[in-house]
Amino acid sequence: MEIGLKKSKHPCGVCARRKVKCDRLIPCTNCIKRGQENECVDTGKRDAEKKDYNSELIKFWHTYEYYVLDVGLFKLQLTDSNGKLEDFSSRWGDVQSIMDLVDLDQSFQLLDYSMERLGPLFFGCLSDIGEIYVKLDDYWGRRDEGVPSNLDECYWDALLWAIFTMAVYYMTPEKLATVFSEDQLQKWVGQESKNTQLNLLPAFTECTIMQLYNANFMANPDIKLIQIYLILCNTNFNWSNTHLSSTLLILCLHVAKMFHIDDFRSLINDSTAMKLSKLTCEKLWYRLCTYDYLQSSPQRSISCHGEISSLLQHAAYLEDLPNTDVNQSEDNFEVLYWKLISLDRDLDQYLASPTKPPLKTLDAIQRQTEIFQTKISNMVEEESFSSAFEKFLAIFLLRSVCWKLHKMYFIFYDTSDSLTASIHHAKSLIALLVNNVRAKKRIFFNKHPIVLMTFSRVASFYAFANIFMQKLTVEEIHADLKELLAHLPPTFGYKLENLTYLVDRLDQLKSIWEKIILIDSKNPFQHPIMLILKNDVERIYQILQRGPSLIRGTGLQSPKRLFQDDYEFNMDDNNKEIALIVIEFEKKFDIGGILT
Amino acid sequence: MEIGLKKSKHPCGVCARRKVKCDRLIPCTNCIKRGQENECVDTGKRDAEKKDYNSELIKFWHTYEYYVLDVGLFKLQLTDSNGKLEDFSSRWGDVQSIMDLVDLDQSFQLLDYSMERLGPLFFGCLSDIGEIYVKLDDYWGRRDEGVPSNLDECYWDALLWAIFTMAVYYMTPEKLATVFSEDQLQKWVGQESKNTQLNLLPAFTECTIMQLYNANFMANPDIKLIQIYLILCNTNFNWSNTHLSSTLLILCLHVAKMFHIDDFRSLINDSTAMKLSKLTCEKLWYRLCTYDYLQSSPQRSISCHGEISSLLQHAAYLEDLPNTDVNQSEDNFEVLYWKLISLDRDLDQYLASPTKPPLKTLDAIQRQTEIFQTKISNMVEEESFSSAFEKFLAIFLLRSVCWKLHKMYFIFYDTSDSLTASIHHAKSLIALLVNNVRAKKRIFFNKHPIVLMTFSRVASFYAFANIFMQKLTVEEIHADLKELLAHLPPTFGYKLENLTYLVDRLDQLKSIWEKIILIDSKNPFQHPIMLILKNDVERIYQILQRGPSLIRGTGLQSPKRLFQDDYEFNMDDNNKEIALIVIEFEKKFDIGGILT
Repeated sequence: MEIGLKKSKHPCGVCARRKVKCDRLIPCTNCIKRGQENECVDTGKRDAEKKDYNSELIKFWHTYEYYVLDVGLFKLQLTDSNGKLEDFSSRWGDVQSIMDLVDLDQSFQLLDYSMERLGPLFFGCLSDIGEIYVKLDDYWGRRDEGVPSNLDECYWDALLWAIFTMAVYYMTPEKLATVFSEDQLQKWVGQESKNTQLNLLPAFTECTIMQLYNANFMANPDIKLIQIYLILCNTNFNWSNTHLSSTLLILCLHVAKMFHIDDFRSLINDSTAMKLSKLTCEKLWYRLCTYDYLQSSPQRSISCHGEISSLLQHAAYLEDLPNTDVNQSEDNFEVLYWKLISLDRDLDQYLASPTKPPLKTLDAIQRQTEIFQTKISNMVEEESFSSAFEKFLAIFLLRSVCWKLHKMYFIFYDTSDSLTASIHHAKSLIALLVNNVRAKKRIFFNKHPIVLMTFSRVASFYAFANIFMQKLTVEEIHADLKELLAHLPPTFGYKLENLTYLVDRLDQLKSIWEKIILIDSKNPFQHPIMLILKNDVERIYQILQRGPSLIRGTGLQSPKRLFQDDYEFNMDDNNKEIALIVIEFEKKFDIGGILT
Repeated sequence: MEIGLKKSKHPCGVCARRKVKCDRLIPCTNCIKRGQENECVDTGKRDAEKKDYNSELIKFWHTYEYYVLDVGLFKLQLTDSNGKLEDFSSRWGDVQSIMDLVDLDQSFQLLDYSMERLGPLFFGCLSDIGEIYVKLDDYWGRRDEGVPSNLDECYWDALLWAIFTMAVYYMTPEKLATVFSEDQLQKWVGQESKNTQLNLLPAFTECTIMQLYNANFMANPDIKLIQIYLILCNTNFNWSNTHLSSTLLILCLHVAKMFHIDDFRSLINDSTAMKLSKLTCEKLWYRLCTYDYLQSSPQRSISCHGEISSLLQHAAYLEDLPNTDVNQSEDNFEVLYWKLISLDRDLDQYLASPTKPPLKTLDAIQRQTEIFQTKISNMVEEESFSSAFEKFLAIFLLRSVCWKLHKMYFIFYDTSDSLTASIHHAKSLIALLVNNVRAKKRIFFNKHPIVLMTFSRVASFYAFANIFMQKLTVEEIHADLKELLAHLPPTFGYKLENLTYLVDRLDQLKSIWEKIILIDSKNPFQHPIMLILKNDVERIYQILQRGPSLIRGTGLQSPKRLFQDDYEFNMDDNNKEIALIVIEFEKKFDIGGILT
């Protein structure tokens, strides 16, 4: 799996300017010694020729997008080592009481809901869908008779609860109210809860996790761990439990390798059962790689998605998977989805890298998106929800890739129509979601995590661009996106709130940008709002770089906060407003307490 | 971290003989298709020129040593998915009652014991040893007042219990009886227990693990997880809980990377606290790599020790760790120990590989062992137990490396004095242990896991060699080792029993070797005892290759058991005896149930 120090092909910008030997590590040792790690990462090019300020400012966006939107918003969680913990036995008690409250009929309603509507989210994880009903019967049989469970049964219980959790996540509040009585819901989440559904999810998730503990899953590896984890990935589980999710993902990779699920080469003598088993392995592996990629973070160095090469290296792709017929695989939703994800990876890899994406690469991705456009249009849409959901996910992801592609064209090459094209794709992303809302029955499609992940990028980008650019089209799309943000499913919870906060804050910065005009310096990076944005990045970066707390005070290295120290401009009236904006960021991102 | 398909430099022996194109994967795809994976692994050389049967037979040893001794004996554990599980809440209850039974005075006695005698096993894991006493006071303060614990405190509780577990493991039964009353011990392990101490360990280990659960450690990563794990590694924890240990190790690697403990480069502006913190990181990292290597197994594909290169590549070694002054590090026990371990790795890598160790490599290792011999002799031995224990561990490991080296010289090159030299080193290993027994106070040194790991190799090798070789010196060392085996610490538990079984079984095979003489075939690999030994390897190999049980019957692929199928020789009287030997192996290694 990927790990270790990364090396750049060129000396870093800081060393190049200082004319010293750069060891090309990212960040390089010189920069670390001088405390300039962060500048080392984002200045790969000579910044001598700054002809167009705005376009230079726009280029800063990718650093911001990577640290604040990708990592900061979704993949960062700080633990307070002084916070009181709930006693394990009382956690266990809570879980028991929740499980006791769900009756047979309700459990079958939850399962029915998942079977009818959420097919593409979990059918691929199982060799035999029908088996689940049998297992749910078993579950009740054992509960009624008080028979103790064996290992296999414990894992199945966890799997069933993962499916229940997913059902609770996707149901509309109205549907949920038909399954559980108001009494029950209040018992679980308390009377004065604003969003019952959102508060119900942690309880159901906890039931799933506790069943895993019950299976003593760390001592008893089983393939079902992967299935359970992948099902939970369809909910807000990963955002709400960043570390737990990382940990489980790593254990899934371990189990996957232990049982060789990545080796699904078909052999001459394979029985029918073996063939079916290998097909499921293939689907599990692609799905695992998909989530491994989507949750990749500098905080997690054990990763597997790199083992499947990009669609762009088609020849290499075929060679790397000996005896795998890629064309045959194409029929799987899992493989189709992975291929789209691999295009996303081809683009997003440049966010955190000092190198600029070659035009050749962008053009190659462009060609691939066209091919997929045709492929997806040809997908036979049956009358079922599952089929419609599958198609929605594929189209949404394809549009997302298209948008990212044109955003990159715009930022790095500013080709004539790139901004317009990016806005076009942003609009079609909006249209997809609005259609689901209009066709009421499909409204739950919008709850898929990929929706918020994509929208966080799109919405914040135009809010940022809108600061510097005086363009009506940008202003319009920005307004559209803000409106949509207000109507995204509330089940996205505080991640949606944080995103809304970030977008509003960028609007606030626009007014400062217009108010304060730098006279003495012509470098727009000296402008307060750029310092604020750089400070945001810096805070996230510091958290990522923190060492262990072996000795008090060595955990986080000397956090430098803007406006507290000797920054390059003086305090005046405006700066009080700015200081508030800076401090609020840490509060909103839950990182304040640790850094001070 | 290391992962993925391995590739060989040469086509495999099977393909070479069949004159087909080999894709050089290990095992290669052709061999997998033909069900000959195992032969692919161990026949790298042309076996045309079999001049000396015995020396060819001896060469088979490394395959056996790797699969049966290294992996099979220590790193394999099968789980029975139909076995009933203890309910989690009752496990929790058991832990509570054990923790309630250990009083303040006893806890301090356990800590004192560890502080006085077990220094080299855990001092390196902690920045400030004195802190532990403060934390134990805290522990009792919180228990007396019923104050709920916070995260940091939960982790400290687990750390304290890891130290208690280690103390219980190393104490002599007499010492243990002075700490705990007979009443208490009986309450924990039951009246009719044969080995109280051995049965006490799982209870104490469970207490440690449950404290980790209490800290919700998967959701709250903390460096203390690594410290706790490394302390448990000094006991029989890894053998008794193979999967749990693997899982924890992987999580430790994750946490280590998250907190950058492998980046202990000193920077100009480091504070004293930071310097101390980095020193501890360095020690933790080397220790973690040591245990990662010692427990490396085909079942665990996530691993880190490969990130530190071998001592042999000294130049590369210095380059790979930028700014690390290797000579300065030399003073650490942890680094010294790692360097010896890296020599062990340089040798043992050839066990599972089809390539023969170049004479040049063996000679280079030989030179290194001479350097270390001097270094260790110069170690200042203070009067303390810790210092004596440290020196013992270093010398024992060095002798073990020397023995492995000369065993390799013997097997691959059969140089004039290699067998004699290997016997010499085996004898000095025995002498080290016997000295500890004689100097009574040091008897607990022999309980270190490395002792059994090394002895499993030495004892079984001469038992094997003794089958074919008519040599008095071999017979003598074999007898000495058997005697020593009977006197190894009973705390090694069933691993020691399994090893004794294996050695006795090899003796049994010797009598068959002498009884049955093949007439029609001149290939000794056709001899029943070779078939039996190959069958042992095959069984382990099948377990390692097993797939997931997604569909009934696909978990393990068609196990072929000797004497059940169409094997190359006919059943007669002798073969009943042999059949028993074969079947017993599976029973003794706890793999029978799963394979049938």
